Amino acid sequence: MLMQALHVIKIGGNVIDNSENLHRFLKDFTALEGHKILVHGGGKVATQISESMGIEAKMIDGRRITDIDTLRVVTMVYAGLINKNVVAQLQRYGANAIGLTGADGNMIHARKRPVKTIDYGFVGDIVENSINPENIAKLLDAGFTPVFCALTHDGEGQLLNTNADTIASAVAVALSEHYETTLVYCFEKKGVLHDINDDDSLIREINPEHYLKLKEEQIIHSGMIPKLDNAFAAISCGVKAVIIGHSDDLGQLKGNTAFGTRLSN
Amino acid sequence: MLMQALHVIKIGGNVIDNSENLHRFLKDFTALEGHKILVHGGGKVATQISESMGIEAKMIDGRRITDIDTLRVVTMVYAGLINKNVVAQLQRYGANAIGLTGADGNMIHARKRPVKTIDYGFVGDIVENSINPENIAKLLDAGFTPVFCALTHDGEGQLLNTNADTIASAVAVALSEHYETTLVYCFEKKGVLHDINDDDSLIREINPEHYLKLKEEQIIHSGMIPKLDNAFAAISCGVKAVIIGHSDDLGQLKGNTAFGTRLSN
Repeated sequence: MLMQALHVIKIGGNVIDNSENLHRFLKDFTALEGHKILVHGGGKVATQISESMGIEAKMIDGRRITDIDTLRVVTMVYAGLINKNVVAQLQRYGANAIGLTGADGNMIHARKRPVKTIDYGFVGDIVENSINPENIAKLLDAGFTPVFCALTHDGEGQLLNTNADTIASAVAVALSEHYETTLVYCFEKKGVLHDINDDDSLIREINPEHYLKLKEEQIIHSGMIPKLDNAFAAISCGVKAVIIGHSDDLGQLKGNTAFGTRLSN
Repeated sequence: MLMQALHVIKIGGNVIDNSENLHRFLKDFTALEGHKILVHGGGKVATQISESMGIEAKMIDGRRITDIDTLRVVTMVYAGLINKNVVAQLQRYGANAIGLTGADGNMIHARKRPVKTIDYGFVGDIVENSINPENIAKLLDAGFTPVFCALTHDGEGQLLNTNADTIASAVAVALSEHYETTLVYCFEKKGVLHDINDDDSLIREINPEHYLKLKEEQIIHSGMIPKLDNAFAAISCGVKAVIIGHSDDLGQLKGNTAFGTRLSN
């Protein structure tokens, strides 16, 4: 049976925090045909709201800690303010969006991160069988467009703060049994660049062999390596392709023209 | 064709604000068989968060105004903090809850209240065809339990603050074509009382004829009259029965024993 196409698209602060970028992105997202899922991170507004409430960001060894006050703020900001405004805008543009945390429909479980040297607080890690693809597929097949924020739950009544990149990747992998799934990371650059200072040096396609060579030549290095390692891990788990590109260029996906850097086997 | 039963249950501040009441209610709600929808109001936490952010409640002639800052707070608190914690708890107890505003799945439209003598701000009124029963039914039929907070949208990207009692009633009416619908208002009393100071004076059943008599005898008066007028209006629009009772007694519904005051034709 031919599987239907699904795009899982992740946006972060550089889209969320800029009203113009966000609206352009949401229009292009709406215009994209076929099944689609949006995953969004936080953005600066969570920090602003925390500050206005007199809650200080807790850091240990440079790592952000989600204490109970911070969890309350991110629940308000991610699941309320950002998620519901994104949903209302998508409805305006014509996408039948439905805003979710991982607790909704029990779609994304997580395990509270065990305390080793650092107690990260209410942070949830995605583990095996964390995702319930059947419940997500029910929404897609009913014509809804799920919009996930970066919150999960432990099944015992506790919400947990979870990395949005990880949610996007885990959702894409879990749904690749039901749909021909493309995972798209919206990024502050046009994609993977030969020369980080030259936007015209975009690398259009990378396969695993090519990736090894680019690492050897140190064209891909430092922070990009874990990002691409995770992308190829998703591909080896069933995702058809991972695209890394700028949110402004998402419209290119509509016409099946090249958009960003496409990673595939 | 025999219609399936649906309960639409509304809770307000007296349940939301008290953790013990809330948990007992959510357990009883989960145990209730058949299709069900929860509608929740705000509670004191919205006021507390507003105060901690230095936002003053705006009142004109004793009426609360939803200015843009207040809308941001209620979006955070109703759709984020309260709604998602209720969903996580319901998941814990075993209900496959999914938390929603009226913008999600375009389920509840509203019209921004026109400015006459008072500008209420971002307040939405439910109008004809405000409810999309097909999209709500898709969730119910897929096995989900919708949990609505008191927010709607105008379809143009604007979220609106809307009375939770009105949402519950409009949703129950709209779904009464698809399901045999009972609307339940959880109340601070055991139901409609003969003597407001005597909890044992509960009136078990009221039909329209009986209602007229109770009004004539001034047993029902002042604030209860609009409440019961609205309840009988919902019944005349297709809702099978409206029950007004205390959240603590919801467990009685499970065994089909009498719970609160039952209004029907």
